[in-house]
Amino acid sequence: MKENRIHNFNAGPAALPLAVLEEIQASFLNFQGCGMSITEISHRSKWFDDVINDTVERVKRLLGIGDGHKVLFLQGGASMQFPLIPMNFLGEGKSADYINTGTWSTKAIKEMEIQKKSCKVVASSEDRNFAYIPKDIQFNADAVYAHITSNNTIKGTQWNEFPETGGVPLVADMSSDIMCRPLPMDKFGMIYAGAQKNLGPSGVCLVVVTDEMLSLIPEDLPSMFKYTTYASKNSMYNTPPCFSIYTMQLVLKWIEESFGDLAKMEAYNIEKAGKLYGAMDRTGFYKPTADKDSRSLMNVTFRLADETLEAKFIAEAAENGLGGLKGHRSVGGCRASIYNATPMASMDALVSFMEEFEKKNG
Amino acid sequence: MKENRIHNFNAGPAALPLAVLEEIQASFLNFQGCGMSITEISHRSKWFDDVINDTVERVKRLLGIGDGHKVLFLQGGASMQFPLIPMNFLGEGKSADYINTGTWSTKAIKEMEIQKKSCKVVASSEDRNFAYIPKDIQFNADAVYAHITSNNTIKGTQWNEFPETGGVPLVADMSSDIMCRPLPMDKFGMIYAGAQKNLGPSGVCLVVVTDEMLSLIPEDLPSMFKYTTYASKNSMYNTPPCFSIYTMQLVLKWIEESFGDLAKMEAYNIEKAGKLYGAMDRTGFYKPTADKDSRSLMNVTFRLADETLEAKFIAEAAENGLGGLKGHRSVGGCRASIYNATPMASMDALVSFMEEFEKKNG
Repeated sequence: MKENRIHNFNAGPAALPLAVLEEIQASFLNFQGCGMSITEISHRSKWFDDVINDTVERVKRLLGIGDGHKVLFLQGGASMQFPLIPMNFLGEGKSADYINTGTWSTKAIKEMEIQKKSCKVVASSEDRNFAYIPKDIQFNADAVYAHITSNNTIKGTQWNEFPETGGVPLVADMSSDIMCRPLPMDKFGMIYAGAQKNLGPSGVCLVVVTDEMLSLIPEDLPSMFKYTTYASKNSMYNTPPCFSIYTMQLVLKWIEESFGDLAKMEAYNIEKAGKLYGAMDRTGFYKPTADKDSRSLMNVTFRLADETLEAKFIAEAAENGLGGLKGHRSVGGCRASIYNATPMASMDALVSFMEEFEKKNG
Repeated sequence: MKENRIHNFNAGPAALPLAVLEEIQASFLNFQGCGMSITEISHRSKWFDDVINDTVERVKRLLGIGDGHKVLFLQGGASMQFPLIPMNFLGEGKSADYINTGTWSTKAIKEMEIQKKSCKVVASSEDRNFAYIPKDIQFNADAVYAHITSNNTIKGTQWNEFPETGGVPLVADMSSDIMCRPLPMDKFGMIYAGAQKNLGPSGVCLVVVTDEMLSLIPEDLPSMFKYTTYASKNSMYNTPPCFSIYTMQLVLKWIEESFGDLAKMEAYNIEKAGKLYGAMDRTGFYKPTADKDSRSLMNVTFRLADETLEAKFIAEAAENGLGGLKGHRSVGGCRASIYNATPMASMDALVSFMEEFEKKNG
């Protein structure tokens, strides 16, 4: 590959579109002719205003939302939102429903418990090691919101359809699948996503929240804890993570210019994931860990016959320029993370390597 | 200048060393031969381990500290630390002293009040619009810590000597002067600094804290709010802001390789600021706003005869490739931010322009 780059299947931080990296590189010493690097310009400048406003507009256009939603940029990743969400939305005596579909949902629930907030776990797939997405869930009508993790990076599952909540707004951690497909935004009170999987580098967390949810936030929270602080200042109450927002802008521009909209992005992702799942389903040498109806388009987790063979697979793949195929340290096995930016060429290279490896070791 | 770059006097985000920007640019598509961009590598990889560990070592070496201190990387800037500091260190019934020397101290105090923590403002320079640093302060012996802002970006003042607290550990917001000079680290329980002035791009906040202060932190805080979470995981409980930390590493390397230590860095800064204050003191056409004994080495704030002349000065400076000289929107006037990375050539260009401007308008 160009510049000796590898096929990057990292779970996050993850592959970015080469065109985006090249644009950042080319203008790195002099952004938009201003005589400074993007890392050196004031967040109060016209140049950065254009960056942040264009990023907001692209998010709104891609998600098909209007003025009833606010697009915010926070720091601390999705993990920082776990405690902030109940602080913002759950007043005295209020309760929220949570669904546990893996490591990150579990952490979100833990942060509810630390704050002694009323958290009702209405469904969980823990009984089978989070290999599936629960169905037919009964939500509590008095829940302020219902929290889900839309895609489970570690377990390789994804909500292929969002649950019927009977009007309770969904709050969704979409760190690992935001912008991979169109979303029924009327179901969501808030979606949020650490950028480092599908949006850009680490260091910024995208939050999209309705005005209705913002109206629940108490005045007396610390300024940096309140989503209203970010909403009222276009995410510039203090200095935002400028470089990460700028890269997100370029990634969103790349989606719009290369694909057009999220329906086309989804079609590309279905084709990519289909190649990989298809190759695995043909013989059984590679065993996907997620139930068929819960498989993720973004993180394809699988096992081989034993750990020795898995280690050999990962090592030989790396020698062949296929990086990041090791499963998360908490679960082992193998994982190919194939976010928006993973090109078809990387899928073809992976599938072809897997076929070769199977022939030699099957 | 090279690549048509300007002389950058921005208050933050601010000028970075050109050598640092060039190194980032050159390796942006392929970091350390790993075949990925620094923005695409896993924070759990050997490559990033080397980055974060080397950054920690450089901070420790430059500050002259050992194992009794922890070096942490947080997000949310200094503004996020304002509420976190009392949450971490002020248990039930405990109190802290605060000194108010300007906009940022005022905000830190406000976040204490929001949390209804016991905050004793033991000194303030508000009586003369924060033009000086208070002296002869009486600290409360039972204060858990005493909070100061070491350099006031907006008001152009700096603690040239740190106060005698009678053993109360100082907690200092050093966002705008960290690493500009050696520090008496035995006086500090914690120092913290948003990176975007003297350390790198925005998006990371450096925290250096003693084990003694860490021992005060309660267990039952949300995970992302506790400094102990960052200390126990080498700042990688969740994905850190990798690119900002990497840039900080390069900036610290640049200090060590170009200057050697912070004493030499300080000498350079004294020479730079001296040229500017010297030029202003000679005639009175430019009027520094800070008292002489409280002048900042980093942010030189000054006024001209009237606002029309100030606007003309700023506009003509910009036409001559001298950017960022407008004072903060809350105070007006002019300001030259001359952090570590501002080269002597920029100082000479500025002083020479100021002399020309004075000749024509004096």
